[in-house]
Amino acid sequence: MTLRLIATGGTFDKHYNELNGVLGFSESHMPEVIKRARLTIPVELEVLPLLDSLDMQDADRQRVLASCQAAGEKAIVIVHGTDTMPQTAAILGAANLGKTVVLTGAMIPYEIANSDALFNLGFACGVAQTLAPGVYVAMNGQVFAWNNVTKNRAAGVFEPL
Amino acid sequence: MTLRLIATGGTFDKHYNELNGVLGFSESHMPEVIKRARLTIPVELEVLPLLDSLDMQDADRQRVLASCQAAGEKAIVIVHGTDTMPQTAAILGAANLGKTVVLTGAMIPYEIANSDALFNLGFACGVAQTLAPGVYVAMNGQVFAWNNVTKNRAAGVFEPL
Amino acid sequence: MTLRLIATGGTFDKHYNELNGVLGFSESHMPEVIKRARLTIPVELEVLPLLDSLDMQDADRQRVLASCQAAGEKAIVIVHGTDTMPQTAAILGAANLGKTVVLTGAMIPYEIANSDALFNLGFACGVAQTLAPGVYVAMNGQVFAWNNVTKNRAAGVFEPL
Amino acid sequence: MTLRLIATGGTFDKHYNELNGVLGFSESHMPEVIKRARLTIPVELEVLPLLDSLDMQDADRQRVLASCQAAGEKAIVIVHGTDTMPQTAAILGAANLGKTVVLTGAMIPYEIANSDALFNLGFACGVAQTLAPGVYVAMNGQVFAWNNVTKNRAAGVFEPL
Repeated sequence: MTLRLIATGGTFDKHYNELNGVLGFSESHMPEVIKRARLTIPVELEVLPLLDSLDMQDADRQRVLASCQAAGEKAIVIVHGTDTMPQTAAILGAANLGKTVVLTGAMIPYEIANSDALFNLGFACGVAQTLAPGVYVAMNGQVFAWNNVTKNRAAGVFEPL
Repeated sequence: MTLRLIATGGTFDKHYNELNGVLGFSESHMPEVIKRARLTIPVELEVLPLLDSLDMQDADRQRVLASCQAAGEKAIVIVHGTDTMPQTAAILGAANLGKTVVLTGAMIPYEIANSDALFNLGFACGVAQTLAPGVYVAMNGQVFAWNNVTKNRAAGVFEPL
Repeated sequence: MTLRLIATGGTFDKHYNELNGVLGFSESHMPEVIKRARLTIPVELEVLPLLDSLDMQDADRQRVLASCQAAGEKAIVIVHGTDTMPQTAAILGAANLGKTVVLTGAMIPYEIANSDALFNLGFACGVAQTLAPGVYVAMNGQVFAWNNVTKNRAAGVFEPL
Repeated sequence: MTLRLIATGGTFDKHYNELNGVLGFSESHMPEVIKRARLTIPVELEVLPLLDSLDMQDADRQRVLASCQAAGEKAIVIVHGTDTMPQTAAILGAANLGKTVVLTGAMIPYEIANSDALFNLGFACGVAQTLAPGVYVAMNGQVFAWNNVTKNRAAGVFEPL
């Protein structure tokens, strides 16, 4: 089984810019992360424009959808910002892709101490290979169907509706 | 779904002793790792004696089996040394536990730079919730049935037989 | 020789708040850092209000001065934001404290990958014990007199005037 | 002032070999460490054979001495194993080099969590620029003259005689 990983930015991939002190985006950390995971299955990485998911517009979500539609792989993991992850999941879920698409992300950027990024990515890579076709959000050890998930921002966790 | 995590040591949990310069075992890192993963599902952690899996005797593997048998949870992740992971998997696999048991570990200790520990644990926690009852080895993005896996020590990877 | 460490915040001590995604301040990292450095000399830690140095007002710099004046130690290291470090150094330098006072900080927060915080703190703790009484800025391997230093923001480095 | 950094191995530079599980030596971490420290002074790095200092023979210490003698710089930092650091310091100290030579190292390897390597290197780079010519051991915030230092192995600290 080949896995497609699609990077769209989000907290997971944020980078600290030492010149202006801002957490933004530079190169994706995904190539380094994939190497570190020592994956023994074939992986295709696709890096889309890296965005804070609060800045995502309809066109950005359509781009993610187009990537999923064009993918030859049956298992897809999307690294995405947490704040609008359910919205993108809803667009993908409504499209009946016939593939297993799993959105994941992080509450703490990969490059910051105590990050959950690597755990979440591993978790998502696991369920993307084992769940039935459909669209899911997979965060912090829990899988949600695309139409039954919301982010509780005050608590910083995902919950069923 | 409640997940049981059983720590048995292995590379994942090794600790550098600064007084003698030896990589051995002290307290398990699992409580810290679980906190870091920000799991939103209930988890039970069981810490067995921490061993290098090359030092595991029959009695040690029987102890792991007994823990799996006694567990009330249907999904179990075992953190185990890589060198004899298939042997322990074989003992568990022959026992027809009626639960989903996933063995995982790490090529690089959790506390050493560039470790795959967190990814592997996330991966195992994912497939433990989604695979049919049975015993599996889950390492570096790939799932193996307990009776079709071997460690290629020269390459540092797991392979089907 | 006893060393006094005074924490005032700055990039060094910034903390990522996972609920709102902002790099701000929580508890100082200094107690953890001091433990990690395994210091064998006596150290007194004084934690002042943690501030981004761009937000420092005159009263904040006077508070730092008061701490230096009140200190019984002859060697003082101040962890400070980089953007106005020379301004605070100027106030301390004009006060003729009769102690060796060394300001340091970081271009990357301690908790972010690839941080220079630990190196800079070690560097400052070294020169604070060996330089003649006076006020200095010590960053990235270089010592500057308080009245001959400026931050080149475009390059992210300190330079003599 | 130009600084010469001489890498000789020791705990500081140990590397975990994931194929055999041994902490040994591969490439030196020093180029990465130097980059991370963002040094703004000129630095010359010299990498000698990387050794556990318990394995150092007379010829190895003579090689370190020869490097110090050949160096054009007046400030030299040597990264060295802790177990025989005082022995190498004694050989250098007896040679009347007319330069400031500072030996440092780490109790925890640079690549292992909670390492003191970066702090110690920063500390050594500071005192190497400020101490009078002579040979010193600089560890964990404390400077020792070459002829008044011993490692207390039970406690894992350096002490005066």
